[in-house]
Amino acid sequence: MDGFSFSTDVRVRFAETDAQGIAHHAAFVVWLEVARVAYLERFAGGYQSIRERGLEALTTGVEMRYLRAAYFDETLTVWTRCRDLRGARFRYDYRITRDAELVAEGSTSHATVDRGTYRPIRVPAWLADAITAAER
Amino acid sequence: MDGFSFSTDVRVRFAETDAQGIAHHAAFVVWLEVARVAYLERFAGGYQSIRERGLEALTTGVEMRYLRAAYFDETLTVWTRCRDLRGARFRYDYRITRDAELVAEGSTSHATVDRGTYRPIRVPAWLADAITAAER
Amino acid sequence: MDGFSFSTDVRVRFAETDAQGIAHHAAFVVWLEVARVAYLERFAGGYQSIRERGLEALTTGVEMRYLRAAYFDETLTVWTRCRDLRGARFRYDYRITRDAELVAEGSTSHATVDRGTYRPIRVPAWLADAITAAER
Amino acid sequence: MDGFSFSTDVRVRFAETDAQGIAHHAAFVVWLEVARVAYLERFAGGYQSIRERGLEALTTGVEMRYLRAAYFDETLTVWTRCRDLRGARFRYDYRITRDAELVAEGSTSHATVDRGTYRPIRVPAWLADAITAAER
Repeated sequence: MDGFSFSTDVRVRFAETDAQGIAHHAAFVVWLEVARVAYLERFAGGYQSIRERGLEALTTGVEMRYLRAAYFDETLTVWTRCRDLRGARFRYDYRITRDAELVAEGSTSHATVDRGTYRPIRVPAWLADAITAAER
Repeated sequence: MDGFSFSTDVRVRFAETDAQGIAHHAAFVVWLEVARVAYLERFAGGYQSIRERGLEALTTGVEMRYLRAAYFDETLTVWTRCRDLRGARFRYDYRITRDAELVAEGSTSHATVDRGTYRPIRVPAWLADAITAAER
Repeated sequence: MDGFSFSTDVRVRFAETDAQGIAHHAAFVVWLEVARVAYLERFAGGYQSIRERGLEALTTGVEMRYLRAAYFDETLTVWTRCRDLRGARFRYDYRITRDAELVAEGSTSHATVDRGTYRPIRVPAWLADAITAAER
Repeated sequence: MDGFSFSTDVRVRFAETDAQGIAHHAAFVVWLEVARVAYLERFAGGYQSIRERGLEALTTGVEMRYLRAAYFDETLTVWTRCRDLRGARFRYDYRITRDAELVAEGSTSHATVDRGTYRPIRVPAWLADAITAAER
């Protein structure tokens, strides 16, 4: 996918379908999180390691556009990139594809906070560097 | 809430919390749907009645901004209004409050389709009229 | 419901349905938890108050039998009673009805633990007394 | 795992955790379904192929015992076997492990029905044979 160097696959679970016979739109929001976790595992030692250093990454925004329905048991590819890292804030962009077809696209916004106080805390240099290197 | 004449309450379920100790951001997307269903029940005979007339309302977009964390067992109010009804498309706006405090806000986009063919179909006049009357 | 003095209602959410057109069986497990929370709110000051006293109630077992399908937007009644309170352990029984019809029944097993250490801790007297009074 | 010849792995999603900091007990019920789908894919052409032949497999019962907590991002192995295939009914047994440790165990009961009428229908010979061969 042009402009994306990372992707991870998800398989539509039966529990994620709804009575319209398609994957429920809230399931996509969970898949974005699965993709972020996979991204951080690849490039930054994993989200768990971020938490272990006393940080949480809160989700402050979600935008999704649904272009095609997704169905039970389909394998979808979630293309993921991180951008706009600034202070305590950063964003991810996503494209969700089924083979060559664009199924959905979106973005999420995040802020890093101290796990104890929940006050915003600058994205630490090691994490910023890891993301910058990943997206170079 | 200024500009909103309809609201419904949701209570944060324990299953909707996550290991950050707060309501997971995808749960909010489900609450918007709960609010739409309540809205349609109040003003348009219920979503089920729409389905029984051979229509589905697909969700084509979601936007959420999260301003405050929500916690287990809190009661949140989901203010809901429908707007921009045009052809087969319409949108909802939402504000989610806890007492006087704005917790999140967002919007969803929808398209009505034929339940059999999944082809776009103009929002029927009875539904458009019901929504227009509700939002007058 | 014979043998049950407490119940709470749930409404089947669209997100809880699946591509079989019925409420997904895992949603029932969440509804049992919603009912436990309502039960504890009525009789024991709320689950949150239990957590605030340094306890968690872990779920150690679930049994469900599904007798009828449940559908989108239906209101179901979750009949709930607590029993077999012994040491750090207790159980709940449930019957889920739609009007006069039994839709599902089940039970859950629980153990109280210290929130800090996660070691089993005897159900405190105030909670045991509240439950005993509720079930008398 | 003794007595089990099939397993599939699941990774605990952040959305599946709860405010106790562990995987929510209802998530396990979804993982059992993920395992059944993987089992049927391996041995019987996939659950989708069963649906395409006009059948649904309803879940008529769930039993789970939780022995250990599971945490975000852990990989769990869901050992799965099918048994007691009789008429329109069959059961699955499961053991969920983390490395050598038993985290949970359970079973689910199912009935095959006609997709159109939802009336019970004998498990077809091709499916019964496939399962018998798998479990031999």
